[in-house]
Amino acid sequence: MPPSYSTNMRFKFPILAITLEAVIIILYALFITYDDGANAKLAALNTTIPEDPFYKLYPSFQDVHVMIFVGFGFLMTFLKRYGFSSVGFNLLIAAFGLQWGTLMQGWLHHSDDGKIKVNILSLINADFSTATVLISFGAILGKTSPIQLLIMTLLEITIFACNEHLVTGILKVKDVGASMTIHAFGAYFGLAVSRVLYRPGLQAGHDNEGSVYHSDLFAMIGTLFLWMFWPSFNSAIVENPDGQYRAIINTYYSLAACVLTAYALSSLLDKKGRLDMVHIQNATLAGGVAAGTSADMMIYPYGSLLIGCVAGIISTIGFKYLTPIFASKLKIQDTCGVHNLHGMPGILGGLAGIIASAMASQQLYGDGFRLTFPESRNSLQQAGYQAAGLGATLAVALVGGIITGFILLIPFWGQPPDQNCFDDQIYWEVPNGKNEHEDLLSSEHGRQTTNADA
Amino acid sequence: MPPSYSTNMRFKFPILAITLEAVIIILYALFITYDDGANAKLAALNTTIPEDPFYKLYPSFQDVHVMIFVGFGFLMTFLKRYGFSSVGFNLLIAAFGLQWGTLMQGWLHHSDDGKIKVNILSLINADFSTATVLISFGAILGKTSPIQLLIMTLLEITIFACNEHLVTGILKVKDVGASMTIHAFGAYFGLAVSRVLYRPGLQAGHDNEGSVYHSDLFAMIGTLFLWMFWPSFNSAIVENPDGQYRAIINTYYSLAACVLTAYALSSLLDKKGRLDMVHIQNATLAGGVAAGTSADMMIYPYGSLLIGCVAGIISTIGFKYLTPIFASKLKIQDTCGVHNLHGMPGILGGLAGIIASAMASQQLYGDGFRLTFPESRNSLQQAGYQAAGLGATLAVALVGGIITGFILLIPFWGQPPDQNCFDDQIYWEVPNGKNEHEDLLSSEHGRQTTNADA
Amino acid sequence: MPPSYSTNMRFKFPILAITLEAVIIILYALFITYDDGANAKLAALNTTIPEDPFYKLYPSFQDVHVMIFVGFGFLMTFLKRYGFSSVGFNLLIAAFGLQWGTLMQGWLHHSDDGKIKVNILSLINADFSTATVLISFGAILGKTSPIQLLIMTLLEITIFACNEHLVTGILKVKDVGASMTIHAFGAYFGLAVSRVLYRPGLQAGHDNEGSVYHSDLFAMIGTLFLWMFWPSFNSAIVENPDGQYRAIINTYYSLAACVLTAYALSSLLDKKGRLDMVHIQNATLAGGVAAGTSADMMIYPYGSLLIGCVAGIISTIGFKYLTPIFASKLKIQDTCGVHNLHGMPGILGGLAGIIASAMASQQLYGDGFRLTFPESRNSLQQAGYQAAGLGATLAVALVGGIITGFILLIPFWGQPPDQNCFDDQIYWEVPNGKNEHEDLLSSEHGRQTTNADA
Repeated sequence: MPPSYSTNMRFKFPILAITLEAVIIILYALFITYDDGANAKLAALNTTIPEDPFYKLYPSFQDVHVMIFVGFGFLMTFLKRYGFSSVGFNLLIAAFGLQWGTLMQGWLHHSDDGKIKVNILSLINADFSTATVLISFGAILGKTSPIQLLIMTLLEITIFACNEHLVTGILKVKDVGASMTIHAFGAYFGLAVSRVLYRPGLQAGHDNEGSVYHSDLFAMIGTLFLWMFWPSFNSAIVENPDGQYRAIINTYYSLAACVLTAYALSSLLDKKGRLDMVHIQNATLAGGVAAGTSADMMIYPYGSLLIGCVAGIISTIGFKYLTPIFASKLKIQDTCGVHNLHGMPGILGGLAGIIASAMASQQLYGDGFRLTFPESRNSLQQAGYQAAGLGATLAVALVGGIITGFILLIPFWGQPPDQNCFDDQIYWEVPNGKNEHEDLLSSEHGRQTTNADA
Repeated sequence: MPPSYSTNMRFKFPILAITLEAVIIILYALFITYDDGANAKLAALNTTIPEDPFYKLYPSFQDVHVMIFVGFGFLMTFLKRYGFSSVGFNLLIAAFGLQWGTLMQGWLHHSDDGKIKVNILSLINADFSTATVLISFGAILGKTSPIQLLIMTLLEITIFACNEHLVTGILKVKDVGASMTIHAFGAYFGLAVSRVLYRPGLQAGHDNEGSVYHSDLFAMIGTLFLWMFWPSFNSAIVENPDGQYRAIINTYYSLAACVLTAYALSSLLDKKGRLDMVHIQNATLAGGVAAGTSADMMIYPYGSLLIGCVAGIISTIGFKYLTPIFASKLKIQDTCGVHNLHGMPGILGGLAGIIASAMASQQLYGDGFRLTFPESRNSLQQAGYQAAGLGATLAVALVGGIITGFILLIPFWGQPPDQNCFDDQIYWEVPNGKNEHEDLLSSEHGRQTTNADA
Repeated sequence: MPPSYSTNMRFKFPILAITLEAVIIILYALFITYDDGANAKLAALNTTIPEDPFYKLYPSFQDVHVMIFVGFGFLMTFLKRYGFSSVGFNLLIAAFGLQWGTLMQGWLHHSDDGKIKVNILSLINADFSTATVLISFGAILGKTSPIQLLIMTLLEITIFACNEHLVTGILKVKDVGASMTIHAFGAYFGLAVSRVLYRPGLQAGHDNEGSVYHSDLFAMIGTLFLWMFWPSFNSAIVENPDGQYRAIINTYYSLAACVLTAYALSSLLDKKGRLDMVHIQNATLAGGVAAGTSADMMIYPYGSLLIGCVAGIISTIGFKYLTPIFASKLKIQDTCGVHNLHGMPGILGGLAGIIASAMASQQLYGDGFRLTFPESRNSLQQAGYQAAGLGATLAVALVGGIITGFILLIPFWGQPPDQNCFDDQIYWEVPNGKNEHEDLLSSEHGRQTTNADA
């Protein structure tokens, strides 16, 4: 990154943010209205309102909401000097992304008479669309400006919504928990961006690319809220009630099993048998990712446990061995290891979906077969479509990520020079002009230093 | 504050707390019973129990509960040495306040045969009543004793309940998300108290009135839980289902837009274009405040986005320019900047409600017009009542706050001397007799120091 | 503890964890299936699915889930160097425990045709079963290896499930919020284990057995999520809707009152009248524990306030006076003071249940009497059974804890030597090989030290 370009965002960033918001408002005025159940005029006419899925889905929506804002936000606070950016840019990306996602998904999926009718499912799906960007954000964490992040949000959600429409809308691929369309998509998109934005200057590592004790504890807040609410993520958009119920049960067990293997592998791969917080923060979640595609299928709790076990194993191995190889050989600097948490487990989820679809049968599902799978396909046909969906997602993610990466390369976007990577100070006013680390030390030379705070 | 008075709370505080609790228990024994749906005797007789709103509202109640205890509590932990007090006094105020709020609201709103029947709406409204005090607490954070806070809770909830009854009960002003009756009320009440408790000794600032790196991250926990669950706050007490649904959607979009403008302004107003955590922690929430009054009206998502945009702008500008002026010119030392987060956005919400009421029509709402607005009023009449409600609320808050402030001035309540403001140590046993800051530094001179911990 | 034995877990721990998970998977394949409402085959046949309690209970389940993973996990992060272990081992115990609990509870309670049908109640009950272990974990926090913890989880959940089946299944004792069967059980089990694992070397205290400023704030995250969601814990498994409703209301008020007395006593018992974070973090929750058994009975809100008041008082007094006596006289080193939070308040809850049962009458409950209490018993008979249930629980817990303690004494399990107690470093890779404490200080002598992080 040419350090000669200014990182001062004073006008670039506000102009971009306000322009985007202004465009959004105009588009909303033109295209967005309330769904019938939330429209005073139509609701009063309509006696079926009590059956609107709103009350049933609102708790799940709020769980997903917590995953997006607290889960992803705090998960990335593990870096010792990048907590403000992790949780702050996460909020910025998600708040803009959900507005844009509502439009993109509405245009593609729901727009019949030119108007997009927002309802509780729109809110859930808009939150989902931001998840792809937040995953990609993890791959480039610490190396991008908020301007770049807003541009990536705009581009990635556009490409995501098209791919999602292709895969689940047109190809009728099953992916209720979005192992493929969100997790694998977000991971490989982000890895492609990270490859294009490769920084040779960071090849030897960076002082700030590590955690301190309490930053690791903040990250655990993110881990736990993701872990706990993942059953809501995987079940929220399932249409038939038994499938929704099954998605909750399956995800619950997959996550539980994943914890056991992630802990076991973390200890096994360390010479002294000690656990590594990176694994605990991340690999324990791989079971949720991997359970996504097959969550509403009849895989039974033991099948879920198996998926979770494998996810925990490959994720931990990935963090230990693949991430360093990616950085050194493939020139992909994956800050948060999204390949291990979202990439491989996402593919695993896609494969589990192929297998579970191939094994589906009238005998296993009874009359539920037609409710769970698209009509007029047999099991093997569906398995084929599942494979096509996985392949398409990976291809679109990689191509989209490369294109986006080249756009983000334009040196006008205020990207940080290498020496300022992983450091909040370049984009944030940090207490005392530095973080607690130095604050504490400087203050020992006299309280005058800290007095300046007040 | 006369430093000669004792700040030792040993007898004053326990006696006050236990006396208040004893009085509460007696009053509950006399006045409070279960609502029919929670009464074993009546529920068994009543076959309509399944339609009790309990199951539908319990998730929203819990969201509000999280906002009150985690949201407000952690939002105020940004001060480097006042975290115990922020989260701890928040819990104390809210736990006492909800008990008193149940009584006050019950007597005013729900008491027909002398008994108050508590139900899920009582719990939500009791939580709401504590929010006013927690907002006012923000204006005087760091400068009051827990004794003063209990007294303020008692007085403010009493006055709040009367004003709420006047505005929403008698005048039938619409304020479902309580922009006026909670947010503006709590802010101006607190600012009035702060004015009366003005401390010239703090005019030049105070060493402890600043954050450290991790205290700003703790505060973000509060911010995010408030931000995420605000749709529940603004919708919880809406009676008609379509209005409740609309309140969720409108608040969701208002908050999202507010984030964009708060970030944009934060950067724009800094010479180096950097973001300020104070703005991110607070101004991103102004969209939730401002959406409150009109949340269940037919303002459409683009209207919500507009309200959120304006809220984010005025709130950030307020933090940057108004707070210093308030302190220097008006002698109002507003520790958390509640004027910027709750005061101005609350008034904005009230104004939006006036406009949205004036623009309401049979054409826009259909038969829902009568469900949304009080019968026998036309739009302009309702707009007039909305304006009256806003004016009444501001007047009651200011007068109530001034009276309460003078009561809190009595030097018997153990208020901290200026030099001990913003410091937990005066009311809390802090590890090692000091906070982590010094703990860390002292320990380098030998482990004996820290050994004393054990 | 013989320090000569190796604390390296490299093979022991992974082998144990993977073996346990493999056995679990086999048992699940043999015994566990979906409940009818989550079974595609049966759901499609069954038109009563919409009445499955799934949608009503899922929000409560998620609240309980948060209590288990965030609540218990962060509550124990108060120790300055044991945060990774507190929140990390909590996750490990709970993730394994819920898998084992599903099996044990299924075999004992729900298995008719040899298959256990999992549903939303299974998930809630499985989470409950882990709570006993997490409570016992608090009594031995800092003094055990993860291997010991997995063994304890296996044994304790087995014994818990048997006792729960005896007490609530066979004796038909009422204990909806599990004051006795979870809280008192977990506490006395853990205290018995702690007694057997007594370490004379820790009698004089330990450098690490204390908090720092921010570790106390992390612990408050746990406290607040437990406090807020306790009404869900006490109500989740109540069968009749009015009882469920009542359990929420009663618990809400009991917790609120408990805060007032815990704060009052904390101040009263300190010479300088200052509050102690240990009391605020823990004793404020005693009202939730104590409300458990009688939560769904007609004790009225003032009865709940009374229970909460007493709970807050005895819990705070316990922390101040009993914990030191337990350590010095009874050789029970109760790290988290579970006797004060779960033990005594659990017994109080049992006693309240006896009294509330004895006072129950047809007059008070109407036709609801038969829905709330087992048929064919009068009030005094039920009170007798309640007392029997409390006695049985305490006896089983103590005997089970002693046996478990002796099994954990086997020196092969990698327990830490005294000097490494309360320290994450023995089982975790800690940033820089030490915690933030030293990290900060060492880094001042040159950035090379911290560079090693990257």
